[in-house]
Amino acid sequence: MDLDELLGGIRPMGEPWVQKAREYTSRLVMPHRALGRLHDIAERLCGIQQTLTPSVDRKVVLIMAGDHGVVDEGVSAFPQEVTGEMVRTFLRGGAGINVLADRVDARVCVVDMGVVPDLDPALLQGGDRLRVHKVARGTANFVRGPAMTRKQATEAVLTGFQQATECIQAGAELLGTGDMGIGNTTSSAAIGTVLTRKDLDQMVGRGTGIDDEGLRRKRAIIQKGIQRNRPNAQDGLDVLSKLGGFEIGGIAGCVLAGAYHRVPVVIDGLISTAGALVAHSLCLHATDYLFAGHRSAEPGHRAMLAHLGLEPILQLDMRLGEGSGAALAMGIVQAAVHVHRDVLTFQQAGISGKGS
Amino acid sequence: MDLDELLGGIRPMGEPWVQKAREYTSRLVMPHRALGRLHDIAERLCGIQQTLTPSVDRKVVLIMAGDHGVVDEGVSAFPQEVTGEMVRTFLRGGAGINVLADRVDARVCVVDMGVVPDLDPALLQGGDRLRVHKVARGTANFVRGPAMTRKQATEAVLTGFQQATECIQAGAELLGTGDMGIGNTTSSAAIGTVLTRKDLDQMVGRGTGIDDEGLRRKRAIIQKGIQRNRPNAQDGLDVLSKLGGFEIGGIAGCVLAGAYHRVPVVIDGLISTAGALVAHSLCLHATDYLFAGHRSAEPGHRAMLAHLGLEPILQLDMRLGEGSGAALAMGIVQAAVHVHRDVLTFQQAGISGKGS
Repeated sequence: MDLDELLGGIRPMGEPWVQKAREYTSRLVMPHRALGRLHDIAERLCGIQQTLTPSVDRKVVLIMAGDHGVVDEGVSAFPQEVTGEMVRTFLRGGAGINVLADRVDARVCVVDMGVVPDLDPALLQGGDRLRVHKVARGTANFVRGPAMTRKQATEAVLTGFQQATECIQAGAELLGTGDMGIGNTTSSAAIGTVLTRKDLDQMVGRGTGIDDEGLRRKRAIIQKGIQRNRPNAQDGLDVLSKLGGFEIGGIAGCVLAGAYHRVPVVIDGLISTAGALVAHSLCLHATDYLFAGHRSAEPGHRAMLAHLGLEPILQLDMRLGEGSGAALAMGIVQAAVHVHRDVLTFQQAGISGKGS
Repeated sequence: MDLDELLGGIRPMGEPWVQKAREYTSRLVMPHRALGRLHDIAERLCGIQQTLTPSVDRKVVLIMAGDHGVVDEGVSAFPQEVTGEMVRTFLRGGAGINVLADRVDARVCVVDMGVVPDLDPALLQGGDRLRVHKVARGTANFVRGPAMTRKQATEAVLTGFQQATECIQAGAELLGTGDMGIGNTTSSAAIGTVLTRKDLDQMVGRGTGIDDEGLRRKRAIIQKGIQRNRPNAQDGLDVLSKLGGFEIGGIAGCVLAGAYHRVPVVIDGLISTAGALVAHSLCLHATDYLFAGHRSAEPGHRAMLAHLGLEPILQLDMRLGEGSGAALAMGIVQAAVHVHRDVLTFQQAGISGKGS
């Protein structure tokens, strides 16, 4: 499938099932909409899945990993090797995302979208957990030119779409997006600045933990990268190709896959939201199928979510990435589904309340 | 045990285990404190349980139920009968709290602290799920005089303490508080107004769904009740006795039991927080052992939590009560524990990051 065909296959969610679900909510044995956003979540799932009994039992967190040439500018507190080392940790099951995904019975799949080193072949024995689809070995340094070619950007998006599609075809009812890539808060803040048209200083934060001097440098680097590459804010693919990275393109592809197949997607923090911004730029309806797992402690994230019209489910000052906020929020989404499906109606409970 | 003995047995949490836990967190294979409030939660559990490997596997939500004489003033959108009817629904397993407690493997126990009708004896066959300890059949209307005597207020608190203590002795590692009582947002807003010393108009909301006229009436009623009874804001027991209710006293007792036995307690919304305010007034250290499950859509709740120095875990515009917000937040607390216990350290993961 090419990108135009993919985008042409995405439809708006449509309101009829949401309306039916809202009517049903009003019959539950509780004051009108007393569970607040849990009702909103369940009703949107009804709209996405076109049913009054949505299911999100089968969950997958797809972690897209890639390296970033811009780390040459000293924008991260960690060395580039850590990208691959963390992928190894995901596959061993010892990282934050593994623990949080376990809590909600979500499977973790890692896609190597463009990590610099070859990952140890022993890690591939797990079979379905690591998928290697390197667009290239890390992006180019966007201060000196585009992070990747437009062709590579398209490939990254289509690879993400294909990987998410395979998860969906294998039965996934709810996708979460995650990321790993040293340097990728720089890339994401740059994408966020361009696509939301916000002031750069408000968009850029400390990532994994740089100091004041590092923060000033990071802002200057992003400014330089935008001036040098002049990304077209009307064209998400151009922005992605100019500012990177491969894993962000992969996340955009996941988001588009959810919309294409009518499967809900919970995005994680800053990097996943940069991917969602790219997807939204390519197809406005993509956000109909999206849930924002949380609002990150990174300052730009609020504006990026607002641009997408998404309200975060959690606000716990998290800023790990990996899909951690998506996984944690999946538990809330699952709870919302159970409330909708399993709470009695006033009539079933035999209660003569207002709602009966 | 009498109340003085109980209060005298509560110690501050103490910082040594929190400090040790913070040191351990810094070794986890992630950027410094990248999971934000999940770390804070886990570290406070370490402080409460005095361990580096806290456990909250065994959970109980204690729902305190009671009726309120002030419903005679037309302050609720639902008739008083609904209190008993909802208790029946809890015992059938069909209410919001049942579904949300199931999601986190929490047991639901209901204590009849003072519901007007006798509950159907058939419901008692479940054995441990309904406990009947009526202080009286509903409180008096606080517009005409105190909601209860000081002796009854003490009894309510001690009963809650005793019920929670039995749960703890049976193995509960994490308690959640819940409430059922038509009219109890009126009582809770009144208690909140007195104990936080905030402006009444900011404290009073629509409860289960009254209209503008109802809201004006509710505010006037609370004003009248406070003027009539002149509760002593320095004395939580006086405030409880003047403004009610029995279930709020029971919740205060639960909160004190957590502090006494060093067991963490997750409080729910407005009504549970009124109970926590009473407990805090009796013993300042009680809040060391408390987590605020969520911030309710009721306007006064923010000020009440701020008074207690508690930051809500969730903010999902919920206002059901029943313990629903406590149960949902228990899932986050559990996730925080698993992150603390199960994520590898930098050293274990063999990663040469900053933290190694």
